[in-house]
Amino acid sequence: MEVDAINNDYFKSYEDLETHKLMLKDNTRNAAYREAIFNSKRDIEGKVVLDVGAGSGILSVLCAQAGAKKVYAVEASGMFKLALDIVRENNVEDIVQVIHSPIEKVTTAQIPEKVDVIVSEWMGFYLLHEGMLDYVILARDRFLKPNGLIFPESATIYAAPCSVPSIYKNWENVSGVRMESFSRLLREQSFKKPLTEAICPDSLLSEPEVVSWIDLREVTTEDLNEINLRHVAVSKKIDTYEGVCLWFSCCFPIPTKPSNLEPVTLSTAPDEPETHWKQTLIVLPNSMKVEVGSPICYDLSMTRSSESFRRYVLELTMLDPEEIEHPEFCSCFMTKCILVNAMLEKYERGEGDGAE
Amino acid sequence: MEVDAINNDYFKSYEDLETHKLMLKDNTRNAAYREAIFNSKRDIEGKVVLDVGAGSGILSVLCAQAGAKKVYAVEASGMFKLALDIVRENNVEDIVQVIHSPIEKVTTAQIPEKVDVIVSEWMGFYLLHEGMLDYVILARDRFLKPNGLIFPESATIYAAPCSVPSIYKNWENVSGVRMESFSRLLREQSFKKPLTEAICPDSLLSEPEVVSWIDLREVTTEDLNEINLRHVAVSKKIDTYEGVCLWFSCCFPIPTKPSNLEPVTLSTAPDEPETHWKQTLIVLPNSMKVEVGSPICYDLSMTRSSESFRRYVLELTMLDPEEIEHPEFCSCFMTKCILVNAMLEKYERGEGDGAE
Repeated sequence: MEVDAINNDYFKSYEDLETHKLMLKDNTRNAAYREAIFNSKRDIEGKVVLDVGAGSGILSVLCAQAGAKKVYAVEASGMFKLALDIVRENNVEDIVQVIHSPIEKVTTAQIPEKVDVIVSEWMGFYLLHEGMLDYVILARDRFLKPNGLIFPESATIYAAPCSVPSIYKNWENVSGVRMESFSRLLREQSFKKPLTEAICPDSLLSEPEVVSWIDLREVTTEDLNEINLRHVAVSKKIDTYEGVCLWFSCCFPIPTKPSNLEPVTLSTAPDEPETHWKQTLIVLPNSMKVEVGSPICYDLSMTRSSESFRRYVLELTMLDPEEIEHPEFCSCFMTKCILVNAMLEKYERGEGDGAE
Repeated sequence: MEVDAINNDYFKSYEDLETHKLMLKDNTRNAAYREAIFNSKRDIEGKVVLDVGAGSGILSVLCAQAGAKKVYAVEASGMFKLALDIVRENNVEDIVQVIHSPIEKVTTAQIPEKVDVIVSEWMGFYLLHEGMLDYVILARDRFLKPNGLIFPESATIYAAPCSVPSIYKNWENVSGVRMESFSRLLREQSFKKPLTEAICPDSLLSEPEVVSWIDLREVTTEDLNEINLRHVAVSKKIDTYEGVCLWFSCCFPIPTKPSNLEPVTLSTAPDEPETHWKQTLIVLPNSMKVEVGSPICYDLSMTRSSESFRRYVLELTMLDPEEIEHPEFCSCFMTKCILVNAMLEKYERGEGDGAE
């Protein structure tokens, strides 16, 4: 009954098996890749594809189904055996070649050519957590032909201040019992370790801001060492500011003309169907009341951990709205922004230069 | 970011905190206890209550709110500190006395009297897993007055054969890719370790059978050492038999007259609102087609583990319908049952004794 070891060597642990189950059950994820690959059939047919971190081999099979001439499915873990089975099960063993190797150690004997297309599902929580983007960059630089395609081609990280009912409000009354003391423990914990949680779109206090837009055709490993955002969000409602919500979306390449098909986007936003990535919440140690127009100012940084380049340290710093510069056309209710906006409007109407 | 230790001593680990969060978020659970306690206000008002394994203290606070004169909240873990905070937060510190001790080591100095009521939330997955029922029995025998009340008063374990789409059918086509190889890995794993999963009521193949009915007023620790069921279920649909689904319900005491209030039941059945217990699934290594009337015969045993008395080993043995005796009035489609039923009906009509 209490078996933690698993008697196959596909997975290192029971948790590992569960993680893959969770990912493969994520139909939003699977369907986005399938649609993107099939919408780009013209760009894949007869071409050579490299699947970076192939896992179960699902993306390699999809590319073979879409007409690829050859797919190199590179997988470093014991999962490569599962990929072998799944490739055979789908009768694409003549097209898909599973390579059991870390991508950085693949030899030219194993992949003796440049590839037309790279596919990879490398995204982690808030995009970068435990992400494999560095490996995709490495594979791109080494194996991708000039103007080759990358699935997905770009990724965007978003942030928005939010309320976090699961940490705050829900504990004010638990079947008639006040549990503020438990809420406090959860806050202490989640300030140290961001939450992975599906949040209701109503919990967002403002429009989202882009933290980073990453073009996979050009991004370098160094670009990913540190990502910073300073933002003045403006609350659109009366609520409590309790944290910052992070999510991401990925864009797949625009299918070659004459196809009329749209490029596919895989979004993990709160108002999109839930994925296994859910959203990431950085929770504040104390809540703060906001009104319509309240400025919510913060610095957000994502810095590669010095201990492991695959991990990131997220830091959220609350800023005093009085002390930092607000952007032009800031719609917050502070006198300085109302005055500046009035001035700017006046200039726009041509009244500012004393022309009257 | 990657903090596993938590810098308070309420919980042993981050997982421990998450487990309590999950339980306290289970509103079906909380609401059932609240309703049962408040429906029995007449039986609690002015009385002495013992809360076995008080955890956060939520049940103790509810009993105090319902008018208990005194509540002993016994908690062995570091959680007792949270219980102290929550008791204070709800202004019932004059009524609830938190005792930091395993129940079996509580001294007569700590609880110098017999109690009128025991409350406890001791139920684990499939009722008995990691359960604390033995501790409730111990507390009952030592502290409960004759005819004292126990919340809940009884518990029933149910079983029904079922299909398990999450292990079988869902892997036949994952966005156009066959993943039978992954399904096989999941089956290997789940045959060793039962799944905790919310199953759709449609997945049940037959009516449920009672595995065990446990009367908390009388049950002994020995009664819980081994629980066995031999059952001939009859499929009510065309489907695949892929496992056995287990769940439980708990009944709270009947409120004292003249109250017209019904006793409360907390059910974790597939057709009831989901709880954190979900259902427990024992998965077969291979699926088996069934039709309307197919007999599904199995032995199910729950045996206390020799390594730890708080753990159980679940065993499911499939039996050959040809070889075992079916119950009277078995509605399966086998010739022997059809013949026996015809005979029994004939006797019932008074035709069997040749009276005509």
